[in-house]
Parts: sequence; C-alpha cells; structure tokens
Amino acid sequence: MRRRRGRDARRDGRHGVKLATVKIAGRQSWGIVTEEAFVDVGAALTARYADLRTAIAGGLAGVAEAEAGAQAYPLAEVEWLPVLPNPPKILCVGLNYETHRKETGRSEVAHPTIFARYANSQTGHLATIPVPKVSDNLDFEGELAIVIGKPGRYIPRAEALSHIAGYACYNDGSIRDYQRHTHQFTPGKNFPGTGAFGPWMMTPDEMGEIGPQAIRTRLNGEIVQEARFSDMIFDLARIVEYCSEFTELEVGDVIATGTPGGVGAKRTPPLWMRAGDVVEVEIEGLGTLRNPVAAET
Amino acid sequence: MRRRRGRDARRDGRHGVKLATVKIAGRQSWGIVTEEAFVDVGAALTARYADLRTAIAGGLAGVAEAEAGAQAYPLAEVEWLPVLPNPPKILCVGLNYETHRKETGRSEVAHPTIFARYANSQTGHLATIPVPKVSDNLDFEGELAIVIGKPGRYIPRAEALSHIAGYACYNDGSIRDYQRHTHQFTPGKNFPGTGAFGPWMMTPDEMGEIGPQAIRTRLNGEIVQEARFSDMIFDLARIVEYCSEFTELEVGDVIATGTPGGVGAKRTPPLWMRAGDVVEVEIEGLGTLRNPVAAET
Repeated sequence: MRRRRGRDARRDGRHGVKLATVKIAGRQSWGIVTEEAFVDVGAALTARYADLRTAIAGGLAGVAEAEAGAQAYPLAEVEWLPVLPNPPKILCVGLNYETHRKETGRSEVAHPTIFARYANSQTGHLATIPVPKVSDNLDFEGELAIVIGKPGRYIPRAEALSHIAGYACYNDGSIRDYQRHTHQFTPGKNFPGTGAFGPWMMTPDEMGEIGPQAIRTRLNGEIVQEARFSDMIFDLARIVEYCSEFTELEVGDVIATGTPGGVGAKRTPPLWMRAGDVVEVEIEGLGTLRNPVAAET
Repeated sequence: MRRRRGRDARRDGRHGVKLATVKIAGRQSWGIVTEEAFVDVGAALTARYADLRTAIAGGLAGVAEAEAGAQAYPLAEVEWLPVLPNPPKILCVGLNYETHRKETGRSEVAHPTIFARYANSQTGHLATIPVPKVSDNLDFEGELAIVIGKPGRYIPRAEALSHIAGYACYNDGSIRDYQRHTHQFTPGKNFPGTGAFGPWMMTPDEMGEIGPQAIRTRLNGEIVQEARFSDMIFDLARIVEYCSEFTELEVGDVIATGTPGGVGAKRTPPLWMRAGDVVEVEIEGLGTLRNPVAAET
C-alpha cells in the first residue's frame, strides 16, 4: 500500500521525506530537501541529534515538527555531502544483476557477493570524482543504496524491509586495475572521492515498493547502464537477511545493492571516465546524483 | 638502533610503552600496561583525549607525565577491550606468508591482497570468541597488526614506517564456509567477536625493528602456526605504501598484516576451533593474546 506523499504525509508524522547532509553557512548540517529549498532541521534539533545518523536512530522523532520553524536555504547555496558521511559500515553487493554478472564472466552463486567500502572513500552530489594519479581506469557503477534504520542480527527475510530507513542513489566508482591486482576488490573500491552518495535519501513510505523503478547511469548525457530493481538477482530482503547473518547491522549502515550491466571496463574499447566528464545516476521517483570528473590535484 | 626500554625510556619522553583500551571500574578507559598493573592514564587525561586513538593523534603528548599520578589497577581487575575498539578502517592483508599462500593454492601476485574487517567484528584479550550458530567452520589466523599514527596518502616506502604508532597481536578469526560463499572474503571475516586485537599495542621504540621476531598461534597449548616476520612476502613498508595508494590512511587505522601457514581449514581433517578451546597468538617481545572459544549465545 502506497501512503500519501510529501508534506501532508509528513504532517501526519509519517516522515515521507528526502533527507540530506550538507554544508551550509560554513557548517555541516542535515535536513529536509523540498522542491525549492534545503530546510535546516539539523540546526533546529542540535540538542537532540548530532547528525542525520543519530536522527535516524531516534526514529526521526521531532523532525516533522521542527520543519515548520527551521530555516530554509535555496538549494543552490547548499554544498552536498554524502547522505551519511560516516556510516559504521558500507557493504557493497557485487554482481547483483544478470547483465553485469554475464559481462564479467562470473559464475552464478547462491549467496550475495559482498565487499567493503570505507567511509573516507565517499563524496557528495555535485562534488568532483577524481581520476587518481596512479590510474586512468576510473569506471562508473550506478546503484541503489539502502540505509539501515534499525539494528539487527539474524534478521528474518520477512522482517528485513522494516530495517530500512531510506533509499539513495550511489555511484560505486571503481578503479579497475587496482580492483584486479588480486582476487579481492578492496583496493579498486576505495579511492578517495569515488563513492558518490546522494543527493538525499528518501524514506520508504515516500519511495514505495522497490521493484518497478528504473535505474540509469548517464555519462555525458548518454545512458550507459539501465535496469529495473526487479532485475536484481538477490532482492533487498535477501541482502539484508544475508548481511545480518555475518555482521550485526547498525543504524546508519549503508548497503550498495549492486550495479547493472554496461560498465566501462567491459566495453571494447573500455570506456573510462575522464576529466571533464559528467556522470549521473538516476533512480525513478528518487532523484539524480550528478558528479563531474576531474584530474586528481 | 634499539632504544632503552621501559620506564626510563618513557621518562625521556620516548613513549616506549604498552598501551591498552580496557573497561575498569565500570567504565571504558585506556592507559599504560606494566608488568603488574594497568595505569589509568586515560582517566588522568580525559580533558585532553577522548580515547586512545585521539591520544595517538596527539602524539601521546602528556602521557609519560600523566603516568606517575594516574591510578594503577591490578591487571586481574581489567576487562580488556580491542586495543582500538573503533578504528576508522581495518585493512587485512591476505596470503602474506609463502607457507599460507601455498597451502591455499593461490598464485603469486605482484600486490598485497587486501580485504576489510568492520570495527564491530572485533573483540579483546580474554574475551570469548563465539562459534556462530550458522557455521562450525571457525578458524584461527595469528597476525601482527600495525596501528597507523600519522595520516597519509601516497606514502613513499622510505617514510612508511614513520606512520606506524604501534604493534599488536591480532587473531583474524575466519568463518571459512562464509569466506568461500563467493570470491570475496568479507562475510567470512566479519562475524561478531572473531577479530581479537590485544592485549595491548607496543610503541615502535619498545618493539625494535620488525623482522627477526617469531609469531606463534597455539590452540589448546599446541603450536598450530609459526613464522618470523622476515618471512612476510610484502614487508610492512610495502604494505603501508600500497594501502596509501588507494586510500587515505587515518590515525587509528589498523592493518592486520597476514597469517602464516597452518590454518585449520587446510588440514586433513580440518581443525576448527570449538567451544571449550583456548587460542593464543604470541609475538616475541610483544605479548600473548589469549581467547577462549564458546558457542554463540
């Protein structure tokens, strides 16, 4: 069942909102994103919540009430940070669309493939993704990220979705030669500024059921990846269930749920992102994460 | 050149000390470990440092001075926590001893194999390592851990050792069936309570040059792994150099530098750790990390 959207739903305490972490007026804050403004709920609730993560841990209690009195800034004044700049964990699912599994030549497996990204590899909407000095193999990976809102271990599949606090666009930018230095992906998945996360997260009641929405990655305006979430090999409930078997999920954990086929590394010739490019990850009903690419300084 | 050891060296401001994070008198603290006592330097320096990590970031300034006036507790009263309970990153090196590479059948590679452990998989000295409900494939991996004391990116090999704040024993406890669910190790390396880190870290001047020391893992008193650090395929300087190519190293980052041959998974029949076992990782000149094993509750 789809709940009512937007401000009305929020006023009912349903918190169907877009939430972002930003730099505004020279300081870091978090708040609600509307069509035209960033509403600085974080500043209004500093005594209660240190950041968006603690607000999520608090069930976003008080957020709807604080919105009316909070200062609003034009979106153009905002510097977007990663939705959560410092998640306890970032878990990434590899090879979760058949089109991508096939292009990489990997076998079918019975469990999700999980690798890790460290928090300091992240960047925000409109921030520059650097091409590192040591490699030109910078590749895009448009993904749906989920944010954990309720901690848990051994979470049953039937309860898994209730642990999700929100959804966001993620670009799991990858340095392919480093990813292939050995069989473990870690080095290629952790270059600074390569994990773009934003512009905002959208709460589940605003987002509706995950499945029919399309995800598209565009490089300089051209679609390079496109799929629907119903194409995932392991769905969100299975991913949450599996991750919670081997780790205690914590509030603010981020799970990037995998990328569709079309990555630059598997094209002939390879399509690397280069200085001057603009990469976008668009998710229907959620928004568009946009990042320019530039040489590392 | 080996500096003078112990209290005299500390009084010269050389900080050749063992540092630990513990629970004492019902609260978390950190301090100096002597032969007979835990000296609660953390309580004496609360205004200056929030925890051991911030003290390391501060170059341990004031620590030697605070020692004399700090309260000492018998070691038996201490509950040992991971040396750093919440490192920004835990980087693990796989297959870094020829004996282990060969027993796993992996090819030689030109770069260190790096995978990740999340902070909430860690545990302290004498704490119970749980055999999870979902697997009996609990294996030991005795390792030398290094703690980063100075941040850096693109750290040249010649400067790498100057970024190390200390050394510690690490048991990179592994759930082998989960490690092999796919080609990425993450799930098998992150079960709660499987990453034992302690009892303390030792500062570099106290430890001396890394190379000749032996590392031994014992299961129920029997040696199951044994090597010298000079047997490492990639030495510490190369590991720090490589990791700093793909990530910004931060103060308090931990790098577990790999395990020697002898792991339980590669024995016939496999030697899994079971409830009632005691596992120890001993490093010459550093100390012994000991953990009982019990069924998950």
